[in-house]
Amino acid sequence: MRNSRRSAVDPFIVMDVMEAARKAEAEGRHIIHMEVGQPGTPAPAVARAAVAAAMDEDALGYTVALGLPELRARIARLYADWYGVELDPARVIVTAGSSGAFILAFTALFDSGDRIGIGAPGYPSYRQILRALDLTPVMIETAPENRLQPVPGDLPDDLAGLMVASPANPTGTMLDRPHLAALIEAAAARGASFISDEIYHGIEYERKAVTALEISDDVYVINSFSKYFSMTGWRIGWMVVPEDHVRVIERLAQNMFICPPHVSQRAALAALDSEDELKANMAVYAENRRLMLEGLPEAGFTNIAPPDGAFYVYADVSDLTSDSLAFAAEILEGAGVAVTPGLDFDEARGAGTLRFSYARSTEDIREGLKRLKDFMAARG
Amino acid sequence: MRNSRRSAVDPFIVMDVMEAARKAEAEGRHIIHMEVGQPGTPAPAVARAAVAAAMDEDALGYTVALGLPELRARIARLYADWYGVELDPARVIVTAGSSGAFILAFTALFDSGDRIGIGAPGYPSYRQILRALDLTPVMIETAPENRLQPVPGDLPDDLAGLMVASPANPTGTMLDRPHLAALIEAAAARGASFISDEIYHGIEYERKAVTALEISDDVYVINSFSKYFSMTGWRIGWMVVPEDHVRVIERLAQNMFICPPHVSQRAALAALDSEDELKANMAVYAENRRLMLEGLPEAGFTNIAPPDGAFYVYADVSDLTSDSLAFAAEILEGAGVAVTPGLDFDEARGAGTLRFSYARSTEDIREGLKRLKDFMAARG
Repeated sequence: MRNSRRSAVDPFIVMDVMEAARKAEAEGRHIIHMEVGQPGTPAPAVARAAVAAAMDEDALGYTVALGLPELRARIARLYADWYGVELDPARVIVTAGSSGAFILAFTALFDSGDRIGIGAPGYPSYRQILRALDLTPVMIETAPENRLQPVPGDLPDDLAGLMVASPANPTGTMLDRPHLAALIEAAAARGASFISDEIYHGIEYERKAVTALEISDDVYVINSFSKYFSMTGWRIGWMVVPEDHVRVIERLAQNMFICPPHVSQRAALAALDSEDELKANMAVYAENRRLMLEGLPEAGFTNIAPPDGAFYVYADVSDLTSDSLAFAAEILEGAGVAVTPGLDFDEARGAGTLRFSYARSTEDIREGLKRLKDFMAARG
Repeated sequence: MRNSRRSAVDPFIVMDVMEAARKAEAEGRHIIHMEVGQPGTPAPAVARAAVAAAMDEDALGYTVALGLPELRARIARLYADWYGVELDPARVIVTAGSSGAFILAFTALFDSGDRIGIGAPGYPSYRQILRALDLTPVMIETAPENRLQPVPGDLPDDLAGLMVASPANPTGTMLDRPHLAALIEAAAARGASFISDEIYHGIEYERKAVTALEISDDVYVINSFSKYFSMTGWRIGWMVVPEDHVRVIERLAQNMFICPPHVSQRAALAALDSEDELKANMAVYAENRRLMLEGLPEAGFTNIAPPDGAFYVYADVSDLTSDSLAFAAEILEGAGVAVTPGLDFDEARGAGTLRFSYARSTEDIREGLKRLKDFMAARG
């Protein structure tokens, strides 16, 4: 049996880091995990209680393909609560995580060979999923003065799609409203479909994130319960699409997914009413961020993107190394701190960058920063 | 925003039937559901107990992309128990249902425009997922004398892949070992990758289903916890691939799915040790099947495929109608029984066929058959 050409996607570099960290732990070392992009907290308690209760009550068979109607309605209400946007629940599509949303969106919008613009640095799976679907990712190099986000002047003319993320992974930077509006307009001027990845919404610090739906209804918005709602492993997310795209997505979803996991839909519905617990999680991220913004420069990582949201700090370390993979290995070995080399996020320039995650406990962050400081001081 | 060409997949006809049935129920009518392709039973009790217990114990974050190692090992053991096949757990890939397995398999094996042979009648999502991935389904018309399964002589030369199902949906017919071996050999002779959909294994009556792994290691085998383990809504399944395909699938799975739902993996692991409960479910299906094979011919549906497994009876009703959609509507209206017209399964000949499902309670099956008998007698 042969392999297809399009299955030749790149490995994740971060997996090698995680494997090296696991090995070190197996040898008895204590490792601080600043490489992992997921919360250390479980799903909200009310969500877990709802699942436990459902085990005795319900066969949990297939739901309809677009998700439980009450969940779609409750997500629509989130847009009123968070942004003051009135949203028809019929436009809300529950998906198998944001991953499921990407597959549905790319399939609904693009044909083989279509070119889709994405910012570099960016979430590596964007380009890998695009390639697996026989689409062509077009990497748009971004500049620090634009908060490492694409700007209209950077966009080629021949795009079939443009995808942006705010807050972004790996940088945590956000698009403010004029910037986001300019990108939506630039995409429309090219006849390119606009996709806004808003998976880190809710995890924001000094100002609120802007949803693309505040600016236009003619966009795809992708979100998830993974990050703010702390439900990574549940594989449950959602997408908001233009009204005239709902039927197409429904047919694709019926065939490609049948439905999102029923038990995760139940958990998600409950999680939407756990504001106190989620606010407590946010207070931890905020304190972690404060410590990072103080401690990383003290350790010598001075060239960092302004992290408006998410739980990452992206550092330009090109003054310290020209091989971020070797540098990350050195930090793991010397400091006992696992960090992610930038190569996953930016093929062209990632050899000179690192991503630090602060999604775990404050105690871990304090200890990690202390180790980084000592290590960098000794490195000289 | 435009829609892609490949998103133009067909609607499910069965959805219209289900909608009509829902409407009739909303108007106060009592409907017997012989259209639905899922068990009426919930996940095994031990699986539900394991999930309830996990709610207090574990953050249930991402698992590795290929699934929990203990689940992969336990699935491998199933092949020893069920078929006497020794299987390296490294070849077992846990997936988001068989749907997730299809997406991974098709992406790993085929490039745009490749032609993949599938039997008609067959599960409609095969051709729709193939089209959504820009692949070309090649429908292979099957004959009653071959149990409505493809035979080597039917296969065109230019296939990149061949997919078969045994027991099949909608017919319930199985491939015996020589037939399956001949198809595997015919695919290999054409350089076509062979995919065996074994989702209905375990639900078999007079003889055991044969897995393609008894014949060759150079095949993809797809299975799921949905049917035999009664876990449709959990979206959890698996795939067995050749050893040298594991790494490719792993990279695709990391990017396209991150991981299968963690909670469903826990439930699945427990479900594998609930033999008594699953045997009790099987006893119900067996009794239902006995009633169907007796009752359907009495009602006038005499031309039926021999249902070796699954929980379907596929009937040729071309002597009764040339419009199975209208006939199904007539049966729903006149008998209060929902059945599926064959058009979903066979675009060319489905106007003359119906699928009857017997996955629900025996009480429902008795009542449904009585209604069908009365209706057909009155129809004359």
